[in-house]
Amino acid sequence: MQYLYGSGEAAALSLQAYQALWNYLKVEIGYRRDKSQIRSVVLTPGSTLDNPRFETCGKRPLAVVLDIDETALLNLGYERDEAASGGGYDAARWSRWEQTGADKVAAVPGAAEALAAARREGFTVIFNSNRSAASAAQTAAALDHAGLGPAALFDTLWLRGEGEPSGKDSRRQKIAGRYCIVAMAGDQLGDFSDLFNAPDASIAARRNTVGGTLLAPLWGAGWFMLPNPVYGTALKGGLDDIFPPDARWTDPGAAPR
Amino acid sequence: MQYLYGSGEAAALSLQAYQALWNYLKVEIGYRRDKSQIRSVVLTPGSTLDNPRFETCGKRPLAVVLDIDETALLNLGYERDEAASGGGYDAARWSRWEQTGADKVAAVPGAAEALAAARREGFTVIFNSNRSAASAAQTAAALDHAGLGPAALFDTLWLRGEGEPSGKDSRRQKIAGRYCIVAMAGDQLGDFSDLFNAPDASIAARRNTVGGTLLAPLWGAGWFMLPNPVYGTALKGGLDDIFPPDARWTDPGAAPR
Repeated sequence: MQYLYGSGEAAALSLQAYQALWNYLKVEIGYRRDKSQIRSVVLTPGSTLDNPRFETCGKRPLAVVLDIDETALLNLGYERDEAASGGGYDAARWSRWEQTGADKVAAVPGAAEALAAARREGFTVIFNSNRSAASAAQTAAALDHAGLGPAALFDTLWLRGEGEPSGKDSRRQKIAGRYCIVAMAGDQLGDFSDLFNAPDASIAARRNTVGGTLLAPLWGAGWFMLPNPVYGTALKGGLDDIFPPDARWTDPGAAPR
Repeated sequence: MQYLYGSGEAAALSLQAYQALWNYLKVEIGYRRDKSQIRSVVLTPGSTLDNPRFETCGKRPLAVVLDIDETALLNLGYERDEAASGGGYDAARWSRWEQTGADKVAAVPGAAEALAAARREGFTVIFNSNRSAASAAQTAAALDHAGLGPAALFDTLWLRGEGEPSGKDSRRQKIAGRYCIVAMAGDQLGDFSDLFNAPDASIAARRNTVGGTLLAPLWGAGWFMLPNPVYGTALKGGLDDIFPPDARWTDPGAAPR
């Protein structure tokens, strides 16, 4: 929390990510003559991480799709309350937060300016979040409060319905049916494709899919990652999962243990 | 550590930062006709964060300046040992690590490729680190091991001498005397300017200097930030320092405390 909510270092990472997003829209998309040949950045159904496929935009209008929490919106009120109360994540508390916390949030540094610029240039800005569809009005109000709106349910705001799984691919495909998604932003790999969260993948294998596949060049060029060391799918594993065996070092000056 | 060393999310952030660095060198610098009019990204002496000044390159050769630890090089062996031993940072252990850990490291994702591309295009790659000058040979070997070298002391490798302060501005100015620094990368604000670390600045004021000054547009365009929630100047402050007072929320469903 010190890092994400308090530091200039994390603010710089976020500004950098949104600068890259805006630069991509302006240069890679905006300067294209034939818009129909622009490439969508959503994996087509049937893709794998080793064999990713994308389609061209055709006549669909262009859109930017973002996650909400810790991608566009900082949940300052909730995180402070969670830290002060000393407990971990609590789904009931989070639900009350969605319902009552709309004015205790702030935009991620750079997000409001980048989204305003994208809308001005004709891109539709769409949010795809696992927040509850039952809190749609309050979530739209939170986005407005942070200067990130407007967002309208089932048009530019896609939320998780009662009993729906936490994956985002099905909503992503619904959005892709109407719009050509030319940029995505998130703080979790699942904001880009559910394929990253295969339940049987090791920590090392999951990390390797990011930089060791044909997807690597998308980071910063279509796919934009925001920092979040506070919660989520990144926080997993013991020492043997996190550190490779060939980089093991034992301090020669330490007392025997 | 789970986030920085184990997650695909952090790998994506790093790839994105180095993609932005390479893109900046290629497009913003490489396509310029009159190289003498390129702007250095080092604050000139006398600058303040509110009134930053930069000079043009003139005839100096172009260089990229990077921090080493957790910017270009992941200290896998040291961090694993520190976590396994359960202690905090220990300067003597770190010194032994500099001396004996050169083959227990890895490149930050994207760094080796970006630095190789920069060198190929004629940019000089220079490291400015607070590692000890007494370990220069071992540090150069660690950079080689990770595919980030070559680096030569007092030419492309600037380290901290015995008794020198931890600020990097004085070494930065020495480098800037010979080269025009057109891009910098780091994981701490002090990798860009010591002015960010004014001892009397509050946590909130320090964070605000990143996005609320004329320096904001540099992130992702000349200044490139790498993630590091594990150690450093970002990890400071209590709840009242980190969270703004106007975003305070109390869970209406919590038991009274």
